[in-house]
Amino acid sequence: MLQSPVDSLRLTLTLDSARRASIVLASTPTLQKNRALTAIADSLRRNTADILAANRDDLTAGAANGLSAGLLDRLTLDDARVAALADAVLQIALLTDPVGEVVRGSSLPNGVKISQVRVPFGVVGVIYEARPNVTVDIAALALKSGNAVVLRGGSAAENTNRVLVALLQTAIESVGLPGDIVQTIDPFGREGATELMQARGQVDVLIPRGSAGLINAVVTQSTVPVIETGAGVVHIFLDESANRDWAVEIVHNSKVQRPSVCNAVETLLVHEGAADRVLPAVLARLAASGVTIHGDSRVQALFPDAVPASEFDWETEYMSLDLAVTVVAGLDEALAHIRRYSTGHTESIITNDIVNSERFLNEVDSAAVMVNASTRFTDGGEFGFGAEVGISTQKLHARGPMGLPELTSTKWIVRGTGQVRA
Amino acid sequence: MLQSPVDSLRLTLTLDSARRASIVLASTPTLQKNRALTAIADSLRRNTADILAANRDDLTAGAANGLSAGLLDRLTLDDARVAALADAVLQIALLTDPVGEVVRGSSLPNGVKISQVRVPFGVVGVIYEARPNVTVDIAALALKSGNAVVLRGGSAAENTNRVLVALLQTAIESVGLPGDIVQTIDPFGREGATELMQARGQVDVLIPRGSAGLINAVVTQSTVPVIETGAGVVHIFLDESANRDWAVEIVHNSKVQRPSVCNAVETLLVHEGAADRVLPAVLARLAASGVTIHGDSRVQALFPDAVPASEFDWETEYMSLDLAVTVVAGLDEALAHIRRYSTGHTESIITNDIVNSERFLNEVDSAAVMVNASTRFTDGGEFGFGAEVGISTQKLHARGPMGLPELTSTKWIVRGTGQVRA
Repeated sequence: MLQSPVDSLRLTLTLDSARRASIVLASTPTLQKNRALTAIADSLRRNTADILAANRDDLTAGAANGLSAGLLDRLTLDDARVAALADAVLQIALLTDPVGEVVRGSSLPNGVKISQVRVPFGVVGVIYEARPNVTVDIAALALKSGNAVVLRGGSAAENTNRVLVALLQTAIESVGLPGDIVQTIDPFGREGATELMQARGQVDVLIPRGSAGLINAVVTQSTVPVIETGAGVVHIFLDESANRDWAVEIVHNSKVQRPSVCNAVETLLVHEGAADRVLPAVLARLAASGVTIHGDSRVQALFPDAVPASEFDWETEYMSLDLAVTVVAGLDEALAHIRRYSTGHTESIITNDIVNSERFLNEVDSAAVMVNASTRFTDGGEFGFGAEVGISTQKLHARGPMGLPELTSTKWIVRGTGQVRA
Repeated sequence: MLQSPVDSLRLTLTLDSARRASIVLASTPTLQKNRALTAIADSLRRNTADILAANRDDLTAGAANGLSAGLLDRLTLDDARVAALADAVLQIALLTDPVGEVVRGSSLPNGVKISQVRVPFGVVGVIYEARPNVTVDIAALALKSGNAVVLRGGSAAENTNRVLVALLQTAIESVGLPGDIVQTIDPFGREGATELMQARGQVDVLIPRGSAGLINAVVTQSTVPVIETGAGVVHIFLDESANRDWAVEIVHNSKVQRPSVCNAVETLLVHEGAADRVLPAVLARLAASGVTIHGDSRVQALFPDAVPASEFDWETEYMSLDLAVTVVAGLDEALAHIRRYSTGHTESIITNDIVNSERFLNEVDSAAVMVNASTRFTDGGEFGFGAEVGISTQKLHARGPMGLPELTSTKWIVRGTGQVRA
């Protein structure tokens, strides 16, 4: 918690002003929200120089603090990336507004009319790390779905985020909406994040985005309801009847197309009846793209370049050009392995057997379960949502890629003419 | 946490067996689940004497421990109540199975077919107090929706619940399903409940049912995602244009028809322009039914029998024949009062003014918002759901009355023919 009572009061005032802004925003028509998004995109383009100057400060500090190359890359903005951010905001303006959608409804036998209508959550908290693009993305998605956001973007991107939040607020105010729709609590430091997690009632939903450690900390510490956007220890199972060409291309695409993301495959399970026929071609294609194979003894026998795999490899989300590979006796052993090690993100089976395909689809308990397709398809853009808030690996509220509707709740509207309950 | 390592191990084994049972149940066809429900209903009828004998032990202990009359009534079963429980189980057998419902789906431009399908959560934990009917209700609802349940029913109903769970297990096993679909952790005492709240990954969702204290303890202590079935500080606002007859009947029905439940009204707000015209008749009707009016000075002036109201009254869910009443300057003050004191359950406006009606419906942030209808309509049965798991006052996943679909998650089924991501 915040040590200073003054900081604690200031954070309370921040959350109160977010609530007030959310009430205004909840009744704001789509057209005006879209005008705000257009103003944000314009502002990002016009003020690119200021954004990049602040970003250079963060990069300098990050390099001095020994941030990894991967983190520095995520932290980096340039002209093209700012332009892409502005374009993404305009794309969000084009999406259907989920607020007001009637999900279902009916007329009760007594004449009372009920309808379940989408409404914004209210105030959404977001805790993330070193990714200034998330600041703009999530603010735009929240605005379109009628939610105020309170952002905790972490110290590594603090300068960039401060400039971005100020630009967002000015743009929002330029169309007559309250700038408090988007606020940052970065000035309150880590203790501010802790307090945000305890702000039940003031914050309606908390979304952590970042490392497994960050997400786990939020999930275990927060009394505010959390939407978990989780890690992906993603599996592909090559069944005995797997089409070899499909196996080669799907495994390669799932690992190599973008290895650093959560829907990239991390473990390959191979039916022992398919190992000789399929595995050499699959692993050769991967190796040609620089993938390190971590294999058990049977994999090593087929592919001598494989390094030995241990328990660590089955548990790990590499997010790199590494793949754990093991031979299994069949579907049952594959399902048991997945039950034990999967993080519930995405799993795919390559098979030509209908019975095994249906069993895999039914029995694997993950957000996305696939047959004969690349795991890289678990993505809001690929699914046609137009934008993605993140990929939920929890079962409550949202599971899998989250679009704008997943940033809303519902309420029941009940219209009577004097009816009472019998 | 459990002090004894043996108990801790036994609880882990209980949760593991619930997981295994849930995997079997997830693939069980509706017909077989319905057979299990019919067997449960039969067993409840055939074994009523055993249930009532165990219930008498709980009632004797409860009386000796000084349980209140209200708690003893909730704890009490008799022939009629057991028969009603059995009937309710048969009703659940008649409901549509939510599992397998295709929520949405599409064919992607590359030919990949995606569909979002309802699936059970898996293992649902329920923590409740002194209500043996919940044991049967929630077990039947969970079974129909494909979920295993782990029950913590509290010491006051321990004997009744032990007999009920044993009957449920035997009935479930009689149709060839695993009895572990329904289990109790009552033998582990309070520490078992604490451990259940920390069983993230082993328990998919936790549902507390009972007092505000119980719900608050679960919400703040649990690392398992919680569905909050909350308290109801429910408001009715009599607008300046309120139809007096409707006001009299709706307020009376909302308070008197069943005062001990969460959708009963607790606070009446009256437009100062309607106080003289409407309030005397409303309060006279209530007083004739034995309702104690807790009023501010203006209410006391109009209705001398009113007892003085204080801050306590605005915050309180009486659940009894008491009603807090205050005069407000108009809609804005009513909305501000509701924002401050509502628990987000149900609020109703009595008005003939379209502008005020729409503002009320839009601006009140509650699970159910009504115009000219009794607050008692916020109910799964009234809404046509056929059964009710509880009424959610949170915004995540489910809001308002929860039926069977609210006891499910979804997963994405992706069917390809070798597609990879470009």
